[in-house]
Amino acid sequence: MMNKRWSKEVRGLLQKKKRKESNRFIVEGRKNIEELLRSDLTIECLFYTEKLHSIIDKYDNKSIAVLQETTAELLKQNGHLQTNDSGLAVVHIPTTSIPHSTDLEDLSLALDNVKDPGNLGTILRIADWYGIKNIFLSKECTDAFAPKVIASTMGAFTRINVHQVDLIELLTQYKQDNIAILGADMVGTDIHAYKSNQKSVVVMGSESHGISENVSGILNEKITIPRYGQAESLNVAIATAIICDNIVRK
Amino acid sequence: MMNKRWSKEVRGLLQKKKRKESNRFIVEGRKNIEELLRSDLTIECLFYTEKLHSIIDKYDNKSIAVLQETTAELLKQNGHLQTNDSGLAVVHIPTTSIPHSTDLEDLSLALDNVKDPGNLGTILRIADWYGIKNIFLSKECTDAFAPKVIASTMGAFTRINVHQVDLIELLTQYKQDNIAILGADMVGTDIHAYKSNQKSVVVMGSESHGISENVSGILNEKITIPRYGQAESLNVAIATAIICDNIVRK
Repeated sequence: MMNKRWSKEVRGLLQKKKRKESNRFIVEGRKNIEELLRSDLTIECLFYTEKLHSIIDKYDNKSIAVLQETTAELLKQNGHLQTNDSGLAVVHIPTTSIPHSTDLEDLSLALDNVKDPGNLGTILRIADWYGIKNIFLSKECTDAFAPKVIASTMGAFTRINVHQVDLIELLTQYKQDNIAILGADMVGTDIHAYKSNQKSVVVMGSESHGISENVSGILNEKITIPRYGQAESLNVAIATAIICDNIVRK
Repeated sequence: MMNKRWSKEVRGLLQKKKRKESNRFIVEGRKNIEELLRSDLTIECLFYTEKLHSIIDKYDNKSIAVLQETTAELLKQNGHLQTNDSGLAVVHIPTTSIPHSTDLEDLSLALDNVKDPGNLGTILRIADWYGIKNIFLSKECTDAFAPKVIASTMGAFTRINVHQVDLIELLTQYKQDNIAILGADMVGTDIHAYKSNQKSVVVMGSESHGISENVSGILNEKITIPRYGQAESLNVAIATAIICDNIVRK
């Protein structure tokens, strides 16, 4: 079961403030728990239902301080998911160090003020599909360890390094080091025609206002997704996917 | 204001059953109302706040049976949006006739059992970006006129013809008429290498089970999005966007 102390702990971690203070976050649902167990992340406790037995058994050599069976009802009461018949874990937020430009992969992403947790989680999942290792978030972005973000990643949170940084400072540094800083915009180089051998960081702007003026000033180049119909815009996660598909294939 | 009769009507239209019976649906929020006014759809009534005055004035030649000013509070109470400080309209569901194969555009979409309203709305928005005119939904798909779908379309519902059909029957007919029936799958022809001059319908499967066995049997070809990283899958709307981008550019 889940005692009162743990129940309070878990509910606290639904709030950003508590996550920051205790440097921990929660992971819920079968797919995410399975990916968590497969990862090197430090699991402080894991509450699970009988439906997770076979998976727990597979990872019985893992060191987990608190490992307790509980009910779907208690998982639902304490977590953020509307239904959860598998498990809920409390996990340490991993420490990441910002990569030097020489350690960057060919493509990285930067998000400037992306506010929607579902969008952020989906972008992590896309990054994971395209083998992107590092995502840089501006300070104004939604918290990458919010339960709704983690839920949308479908396990990608275990593989992507998320860095919440002063975006202007970092991108300025990378630009000096000859990394191409690209920005998605409504007007720019057609992404179907874009070619480059340079390592790049692609900046995606906020849902409502695009890339902020200060970040826009740093860009080497604006890139755009050609439109064939009449929609005014694309959702930021959709645009991220199309851009990644075009850059990675080259 | 919104009287009791209208309040009851509008709330009723949150349910699929009432939408089917009365052949009407609701449209909410500034962007969608603006696109609605620009369209040829028949608006039965429009409740709006002072924030919508300038837009209403622009379309004062439109024939709308009931046009009433109301409050954001009442819009929120009666509609599905968590906040709505602009407007809410009751609109007739347009009659669409299923296009003959000779009338199909180069690319159309078919959705097999897509259940999530947010996904369906986002797919309509993507189709609108790529100039796709017709989307065919299997009978099991979520209702395309649900408020959450309409909200996610960002106006695309005014431009896309959505047909809820017997997918197997229709695709079989189109295939006989030499339309290429393609299906998105985890294994198939690399979408980056796919080339064809044939008109095509791309089938996207359900969030959890992909394309159903019966529909799968009709496909001329399976297509796939190459993976460079470790994510197990992509969200169906994300996959739709990447496939559209690859087929339309050719």
